[in-house]
Amino acid sequence: MFDVNQYAVVAESIVNAGRFLYGRGWSPATSSNYSARIDSGHIAITVSGRHKGQLAAGDVMVIDLQGRPVQSECRASAETLLHTALYQEFPDVGAVLHTHSVNATVLSRLVPAGELLAFEGYELQKAFDGVETHESVVTIPVFENTQNIETLAEETREWFMEHPAQPGYLIRGHGLYTWGKTMADCLRHVEALEFLFECELVTMRVRP
Amino acid sequence: MFDVNQYAVVAESIVNAGRFLYGRGWSPATSSNYSARIDSGHIAITVSGRHKGQLAAGDVMVIDLQGRPVQSECRASAETLLHTALYQEFPDVGAVLHTHSVNATVLSRLVPAGELLAFEGYELQKAFDGVETHESVVTIPVFENTQNIETLAEETREWFMEHPAQPGYLIRGHGLYTWGKTMADCLRHVEALEFLFECELVTMRVRP
Amino acid sequence: MFDVNQYAVVAESIVNAGRFLYGRGWSPATSSNYSARIDSGHIAITVSGRHKGQLAAGDVMVIDLQGRPVQSECRASAETLLHTALYQEFPDVGAVLHTHSVNATVLSRLVPAGELLAFEGYELQKAFDGVETHESVVTIPVFENTQNIETLAEETREWFMEHPAQPGYLIRGHGLYTWGKTMADCLRHVEALEFLFECELVTMRVRP
Amino acid sequence: MFDVNQYAVVAESIVNAGRFLYGRGWSPATSSNYSARIDSGHIAITVSGRHKGQLAAGDVMVIDLQGRPVQSECRASAETLLHTALYQEFPDVGAVLHTHSVNATVLSRLVPAGELLAFEGYELQKAFDGVETHESVVTIPVFENTQNIETLAEETREWFMEHPAQPGYLIRGHGLYTWGKTMADCLRHVEALEFLFECELVTMRVRP
Repeated sequence: MFDVNQYAVVAESIVNAGRFLYGRGWSPATSSNYSARIDSGHIAITVSGRHKGQLAAGDVMVIDLQGRPVQSECRASAETLLHTALYQEFPDVGAVLHTHSVNATVLSRLVPAGELLAFEGYELQKAFDGVETHESVVTIPVFENTQNIETLAEETREWFMEHPAQPGYLIRGHGLYTWGKTMADCLRHVEALEFLFECELVTMRVRP
Repeated sequence: MFDVNQYAVVAESIVNAGRFLYGRGWSPATSSNYSARIDSGHIAITVSGRHKGQLAAGDVMVIDLQGRPVQSECRASAETLLHTALYQEFPDVGAVLHTHSVNATVLSRLVPAGELLAFEGYELQKAFDGVETHESVVTIPVFENTQNIETLAEETREWFMEHPAQPGYLIRGHGLYTWGKTMADCLRHVEALEFLFECELVTMRVRP
Repeated sequence: MFDVNQYAVVAESIVNAGRFLYGRGWSPATSSNYSARIDSGHIAITVSGRHKGQLAAGDVMVIDLQGRPVQSECRASAETLLHTALYQEFPDVGAVLHTHSVNATVLSRLVPAGELLAFEGYELQKAFDGVETHESVVTIPVFENTQNIETLAEETREWFMEHPAQPGYLIRGHGLYTWGKTMADCLRHVEALEFLFECELVTMRVRP
Repeated sequence: MFDVNQYAVVAESIVNAGRFLYGRGWSPATSSNYSARIDSGHIAITVSGRHKGQLAAGDVMVIDLQGRPVQSECRASAETLLHTALYQEFPDVGAVLHTHSVNATVLSRLVPAGELLAFEGYELQKAFDGVETHESVVTIPVFENTQNIETLAEETREWFMEHPAQPGYLIRGHGLYTWGKTMADCLRHVEALEFLFECELVTMRVRP
């Protein structure tokens, strides 16, 4: 059993995040899904297929850490296991955001298979928890897209067990996953990663 | 005869769609036209030449499936027959949106005559009705622009009789037509297509 | 003497145009100036140096067709004579807008001296008064920038005496002038020209 | 001792500047810092790490010209000495804004070490105090990024002692510093510099 008021509080943070992320063009056409931790065993997550800029009461459901619905007839996002893998792996994660921007999508298709994105020399790297200087390297792996979410969840889990300090990952042709201790931290990570993606693409346009 | 309350409801959906599409920059300078089905024989459609971000009472008229005005002295869009061709061809279509974005216009001029746009490997293809995986191909034909709308309507009708599952088409140097069962579906299709157009153009800039 | 209520009406149309144009990023950093006709001998025009997104009572003054202040201690824009040249030349012009977008600025610097911009094959050309088909050519001359406005006003007057059907001009590294019978027409012309400028630049990026 | 009402007035100007700059995308992910002069010995400045689009009461603190907190337990921005160097050097400076746009970041990384950005032939150069014609040259130096702010502050001070008429500087991979007599002047400088940065990058994309 979970605390219902706590559900209501984190559900509101998800609704507000959706309004912001849709407004920035990062969650178009009912894409994306968002979640936030209620307690050590329960997660609030968006119901599948909703308009992310117009989330309302009833569009955020509860699941357990295995991704099973709790007190709900709704269907959670098809990608629920990508969220729960992160909550299981990182006990201090409080929110996970999955977004679909044009820049993340294009970049994820440009990175050759087996390579990852590496950012260095950007002051904005300090927006990530634990990064103190631009003289660090932030790496973002790119996983191949698949409709088999169970396999993909396993792949991401294995990668982040070995790279726990890295702040997110891309799925090719699909989008970004990032997380944080609080929803505010997580939104800051989305903004920082989208900033870095855009810097990279603008640079590539000038120096193809 | 049609139900007037039903007219009012779909007219409102058109006014709201205009506010959204103009706000995104996809219907500039009084371009574009939008329609929605009232019943099996009547369509609500924007009056010719109105500002699409400022549609008001009186800017949405009624036509029959042949494009003739019903209970109205207004002049429907010059492109009315492109709308009615779709309603005739697809009985479950409830809304048709024609937009004029920069990206759709530029892409439509870059595609060589006789070729079409093909999208694959994008997760966002799942935004289209009936698409279940990114491992599909969405194709968007490009018709030559003409002021002879009757001929163009016939061309589009013939193409979509053979490709009923495809979600839209471009007219060269002109813009996009897409449709859906409901206005919400149709708006999702516009967003998804504009997303794919932008991805394609950003990619072409980096890899000319 | 002019009708004061008519002044108030056109001044309001200028204030609203400023809010729109600044919001689109086309009048940054107190650049740009706007005017609208009060009657055959009087023009309302923005006072020099004001923030165009925050125009308020007192920021729109009256001048005569020679550009001299009427019932005002304010200083009109340094470019006032570019406005009055158009009102003198075209008796049916009701509004003139001068804007400073990034795209207009960049394009105006890319066009070689002595050449002009020509647009054809765009459906949106029909947004200009008198254009009925995309199979027309819209030409936009580019004048060299100078702080000698009197000379520039004369050059523009001469060009448009010979090309009265063309809807606007650029000044190199500086911005756009366009006009219309009403403020709504004039704003439609700005939107249509900015659309064409962006199409052109996006195309040039893909096919340098 | 400083006048508390004067603090409240300049703090409000900082809060409003933050809302504007964040809205434009120039201060993402809690980056940036802003300040404004209270009197000859006191500066109001943003507290470290706050969301710049959501600054509220308590997010603006007071420091002296050496960067030491006055009547506050808060920690000022790590870059406080870059602000105080400008207030010390230029007694008529009333506001300093440091922003982190994509364009400023990318451009600062593209300029070769030891070179600076030079803008000429842009009418918008007249947005800077003291510039009367587009036939001038505005130069923006690019300093190497470092977490040693004391050293960087000294470098900037030395450069501007020799170039007091120039309106701003970049730090590589980091962002822009600019200033003005009033907050309105300073915001106009940010807008004008961002305009010039974007013009430069759009031009580089077309002519790589």
